Amino acid sequence: MKIGIITIGDELLLGQVIDSNSAKMANMIYPLGLKIEKKWCISDQHEAILSCMAQAEAELDLILVTGGLGPTRDDITKKTMAEFFGVPLVFSDENYQHILSLFNARNIPVREEQKSQCFIPEGTRLLENKMGTAMGLYFQHHKKHWFAMPGVPYEMEYIMQNSVLPFLQQHRSHERIMHKTIHIVGLGETDIAARLEPLLHDIPREMTLAYLPSIGLVKFRLTMKSENEQWMSEQLDHYINVCKNELGDKVFSASDDNLESVVANLLNEKNFTLGLCESCTGGFLSYRFTTMPGASDYFKGTIVCYSNEIKINLLKVQESTLNQFGAVSEETVKELVIGGIKTLNVDCCISISGIAGPSGGTIEKPVGTIWIAVGNAENQLTKKLLLGKDRKRNIEGASTYALILCREWLLKQTQKLIN
Amino acid sequence: MKIGIITIGDELLLGQVIDSNSAKMANMIYPLGLKIEKKWCISDQHEAILSCMAQAEAELDLILVTGGLGPTRDDITKKTMAEFFGVPLVFSDENYQHILSLFNARNIPVREEQKSQCFIPEGTRLLENKMGTAMGLYFQHHKKHWFAMPGVPYEMEYIMQNSVLPFLQQHRSHERIMHKTIHIVGLGETDIAARLEPLLHDIPREMTLAYLPSIGLVKFRLTMKSENEQWMSEQLDHYINVCKNELGDKVFSASDDNLESVVANLLNEKNFTLGLCESCTGGFLSYRFTTMPGASDYFKGTIVCYSNEIKINLLKVQESTLNQFGAVSEETVKELVIGGIKTLNVDCCISISGIAGPSGGTIEKPVGTIWIAVGNAENQLTKKLLLGKDRKRNIEGASTYALILCREWLLKQTQKLIN
Repeated sequence: MKIGIITIGDELLLGQVIDSNSAKMANMIYPLGLKIEKKWCISDQHEAILSCMAQAEAELDLILVTGGLGPTRDDITKKTMAEFFGVPLVFSDENYQHILSLFNARNIPVREEQKSQCFIPEGTRLLENKMGTAMGLYFQHHKKHWFAMPGVPYEMEYIMQNSVLPFLQQHRSHERIMHKTIHIVGLGETDIAARLEPLLHDIPREMTLAYLPSIGLVKFRLTMKSENEQWMSEQLDHYINVCKNELGDKVFSASDDNLESVVANLLNEKNFTLGLCESCTGGFLSYRFTTMPGASDYFKGTIVCYSNEIKINLLKVQESTLNQFGAVSEETVKELVIGGIKTLNVDCCISISGIAGPSGGTIEKPVGTIWIAVGNAENQLTKKLLLGKDRKRNIEGASTYALILCREWLLKQTQKLIN
Repeated sequence: MKIGIITIGDELLLGQVIDSNSAKMANMIYPLGLKIEKKWCISDQHEAILSCMAQAEAELDLILVTGGLGPTRDDITKKTMAEFFGVPLVFSDENYQHILSLFNARNIPVREEQKSQCFIPEGTRLLENKMGTAMGLYFQHHKKHWFAMPGVPYEMEYIMQNSVLPFLQQHRSHERIMHKTIHIVGLGETDIAARLEPLLHDIPREMTLAYLPSIGLVKFRLTMKSENEQWMSEQLDHYINVCKNELGDKVFSASDDNLESVVANLLNEKNFTLGLCESCTGGFLSYRFTTMPGASDYFKGTIVCYSNEIKINLLKVQESTLNQFGAVSEETVKELVIGGIKTLNVDCCISISGIAGPSGGTIEKPVGTIWIAVGNAENQLTKKLLLGKDRKRNIEGASTYALILCREWLLKQTQKLIN
């Protein structure tokens, strides 16, 4: 079964909204061994929708459409789908009752305009949406399956979960997709390829490989498609182990765990608590930890010490250190770690101070200069980064390198105990 | 000139990477009055690329391709493009010199494998990329313009900025696109439509409208396309004013300013400093403020008080308050504001405490229960939220509602001064 996505909405093409829905849908169907073959993003205009539907129907078996199901003038998906399917729009009392019950539960009067949202292509099966007024739609046309959902992420997710996934479960083939990923630090894409590809010359033809570089790290992925799950699993395990052995401790994760999970696991293993002192990253590293469920097991808190006053008063950085070396210096990040350990009463502390930009740089310390430190009151590891000019990228990059340094420090503590 | 995007990469279709490149490209061409007509996302497989290139060339005048230009085995864009264009791949010494100079500057030896990255379709013009080894490509085929760029965001941005935008500047038509957006809180999409659309029945046919709802707010956008810039600008101003007058203080921004900018501007106007005490949002609100350049003008710092110990020790929340009412309560967030004002030495403080989920809920306080407070030592506004079960969405939603409450508190301070 070949599956595709059509996302409809000018806001996506204008770049006002980043399309995270498609990735979410892909993630949701992946555990069923299914993947998205192709994706279109089009304007909410009649002709654009019609021609794209024709393309998709010619190439695919099942199409997931999002967007344009709302009650307002720019919502033309249902009308256009009816035209494509060659059926009239009909008023759906089921849809209207759904809106009535939602509004009654919230004590909101139902407007007459809401009725316009209840016209659906004749022959459509409605799909429950407990999260909003726009129900999902299912239609079969020329033996192809069409699902239409609202573009609001949590409404789309609800309909995917409750209607689309059960349908796919019933209709999928015996073929499965599996992948394994390793995460690598300290090596570039080409270096990794030069070391791995000679070892991978004999992979089965069902296996493909991919490199996904991002700031500070590279993900390397092996993917397979086959009906034989056990064989796939064995093959993937075998070749992933080959890669892991070749790259040694450059591999920080051999699962889908991201860097923050790896650090979290190391902290939990050691029963260490963590605290952060963030200056230029402004809370972003803290957010990366706390966005993971269970952060409270090891994470106690963060001081975002944006002003020097807070560095001095709350984290006991010496004024003389700030005057002599500046807030962006090895001396300051070390003192921040020592202060953070005490103020936050934790076993391990990460500090970051830098010039995120776009302004604030000097000749000696240009925009993108960032110091990080990790450790406890007794010993710290430090690192200087020279990143680029882009503020957001500097914040993200600094937080990633801080996680890499934290992993390194935590591994060193284990080695110390062993020696 | 009709412009489209093809993004190539299994990682996008598998949902491992969210496609932010397309939005960035759209944002970059928008100031030239240009927009993306259609976007494809396809697998990095030979047949998929060939058939998509044919579709795009049939529908569009200029196509921006990203992905698959790297040195590794999964990078097949150049080979496939050469086949589509009907030309051979040739070795480019220009490209090789580019790699040599990049590697020499970093003192890295050049691998033989790197040479494979230097084969390009014959007749291609190379586009400078100071950010990485993969240069951009320009090719003209059947009078259509093709640009290929690496998928790494900052490399793509560099090539867009330095090669694609100058090309578009020369080749664009006289037609321009303009839009105006208002941001609305406290009203749903249907309510807004019911109030605005009767007032917008006579808009010019060149004008389109769109509603973009997200947690806690709705963006309403008017867009126009015409050769007459002055007329467009006047029309947009007129109708945006009509909408603003109708919705009053439900409109918090009538520019592209987001909610955090609006709050930042209010703080700067009043010469107020800001501090945050974040529990369940874990630093995300702090990140939203500090991701904007110039945050240090008003923002002093944040205490992410994830553990009760930090709430008590650093922010002077009474243990009895935590015992009697719990960490997620109106009493606690009020005390957090009062403590934050003192500890961070600021004029205005926002506090957030809630149950982000997925676990930690009780019958009285289910997952999604969040309390926020904004104010100073003398007076605070508080609000209770009942959001959903999704951790990330709860964190984002809580930070948005905290910004809305902060705007309200800041506006109240102005009214007090007037009365």
